[in-house]
Amino acid sequence: MNFEKKLNEYIEKVNFNIDSYLELRYPERIFEAMRYSILAGGKRLRPLLLLSACEAVGGNIEDCMPFACAMEMIHTYSLIHDDLPAMDNDDFRRGKPTCHKVYDEGIAILAGDGLLNYAFEVIFDAICKKGDINLAKAGKIIADYSGSKGMLVGQVVDIESEGKEIDKDTLLYIHDNKTGGLIKASLMAGALIGGASEKEVEKFKEIGYKIGMAFQIKDDILDVTSTTEVLGKPVLSDVKNNKITYVSLFGMEKAKEDFEKLSEEAVKLIGEFGEKAEFLQWYAKSLINRNK
Amino acid sequence: MNFEKKLNEYIEKVNFNIDSYLELRYPERIFEAMRYSILAGGKRLRPLLLLSACEAVGGNIEDCMPFACAMEMIHTYSLIHDDLPAMDNDDFRRGKPTCHKVYDEGIAILAGDGLLNYAFEVIFDAICKKGDINLAKAGKIIADYSGSKGMLVGQVVDIESEGKEIDKDTLLYIHDNKTGGLIKASLMAGALIGGASEKEVEKFKEIGYKIGMAFQIKDDILDVTSTTEVLGKPVLSDVKNNKITYVSLFGMEKAKEDFEKLSEEAVKLIGEFGEKAEFLQWYAKSLINRNK
Repeated sequence: MNFEKKLNEYIEKVNFNIDSYLELRYPERIFEAMRYSILAGGKRLRPLLLLSACEAVGGNIEDCMPFACAMEMIHTYSLIHDDLPAMDNDDFRRGKPTCHKVYDEGIAILAGDGLLNYAFEVIFDAICKKGDINLAKAGKIIADYSGSKGMLVGQVVDIESEGKEIDKDTLLYIHDNKTGGLIKASLMAGALIGGASEKEVEKFKEIGYKIGMAFQIKDDILDVTSTTEVLGKPVLSDVKNNKITYVSLFGMEKAKEDFEKLSEEAVKLIGEFGEKAEFLQWYAKSLINRNK
Repeated sequence: MNFEKKLNEYIEKVNFNIDSYLELRYPERIFEAMRYSILAGGKRLRPLLLLSACEAVGGNIEDCMPFACAMEMIHTYSLIHDDLPAMDNDDFRRGKPTCHKVYDEGIAILAGDGLLNYAFEVIFDAICKKGDINLAKAGKIIADYSGSKGMLVGQVVDIESEGKEIDKDTLLYIHDNKTGGLIKASLMAGALIGGASEKEVEKFKEIGYKIGMAFQIKDDILDVTSTTEVLGKPVLSDVKNNKITYVSLFGMEKAKEDFEKLSEEAVKLIGEFGEKAEFLQWYAKSLINRNK
């Protein structure tokens, strides 16, 4: 099977659905701002993981589409708010001016709020249309790992740690929650909707932990070893910002070692789901081999 | 029945539950900030409407408690974000420094995000525990009216209208959505959980529209007729800010007239639910007769 082609088809489907969910309507300015940020590109990593986890357990990806799009809305809301002057104060993302630079801070805050809220509007709509309580369990996972059991608390500890000496446990907590939260949620929710058992969902949590952690270690490695041209953003930014990373805390050798180990384990765990999981496995490998 | 006593009992129950949901835990700073804002007082208007609407159709209020607390979390998130420098830039609320003054802007943004997200964590938890798809319908109503069909879009049009001449339709849109959104959602969700039919839920939407609009007209009236001492906040603030209000657009006489009419209609509609709705009716009247 041509996985690359399939990947692009899935991305197109996700983009098409996001576009229709967020159709421009009154009051236009807020929908424009939400659309500006969510349609600015991006790998659609979380939707892709959700769809392919569903497929890996034999589910129908059409059932997942609202949830996949909701994950991207939640991811985008977090980027908009992270970029705000009161947080990371970033003027550019993916080479384009950030939401609060194009609109204003007030609208950017509301666009973030709007995307988070809209994710749950879309999820509840799907649950009610299907009348399937299993979908509510997927909703619960997404809510938990976006919030008090994942991304939000990871982000809090991250900004609280700025300029401080942090220990290994704290760094692992940040990576596992801030980056790993939505990755775990995507895989678990996708598997659940696809009909996975509780035990299988737990396995996807483990896969998510490993992919999330490997993803973040790679980020930390690339910040040191890559070039601005390849990465499309300034390198050595962590060093300049005195930011503790996996590399600065454990050293480059161990970082590379752990990255390899986590990646291999994740790929192996996915393999346990057999042929149906081949696309997910290929996709996980492509994330591991990325150079930007 | 002593309604005043019952009201205080309900408020205590709501406060007790909010307190336990948001128990202080790691990372403490964000839970502290969320607790600071949500436990800073407040009438608990939305939870009270939700509980008493459930009761008005013969439901058990214990089933509603997670939803009632979620409404207060959503309301509080909107206040925290509204108070931010990029929005209304308010240093005080209910006589206490606002969230971003006590903590910082970054934490205030995250505390708002956290409360919105946590509301849905609590709601999904309740749905999954009960395994009742009817509760998902209540979740959908809450998500819709907090977001793209209510509060969020109302707030967008409100800040977009600042310093502009707006027409009647725009003012009614702002009031119906920004203030009315959560009021309608509370009544509709409470009724739904209590076992109301679709037709009855629609009636609660109408009641919510009337209460929300009357509530907001009263706000606009009090800004002109009250004193800073009674109101606990500066009067004539709308006039000073050149803000178009119901009073400035329709005149004081018509504002009072419409307020009376909407209030009477709301109370009458509640009456159709008979004896079980007596507390809701009393509560609606107390909102109407408020002088602050």
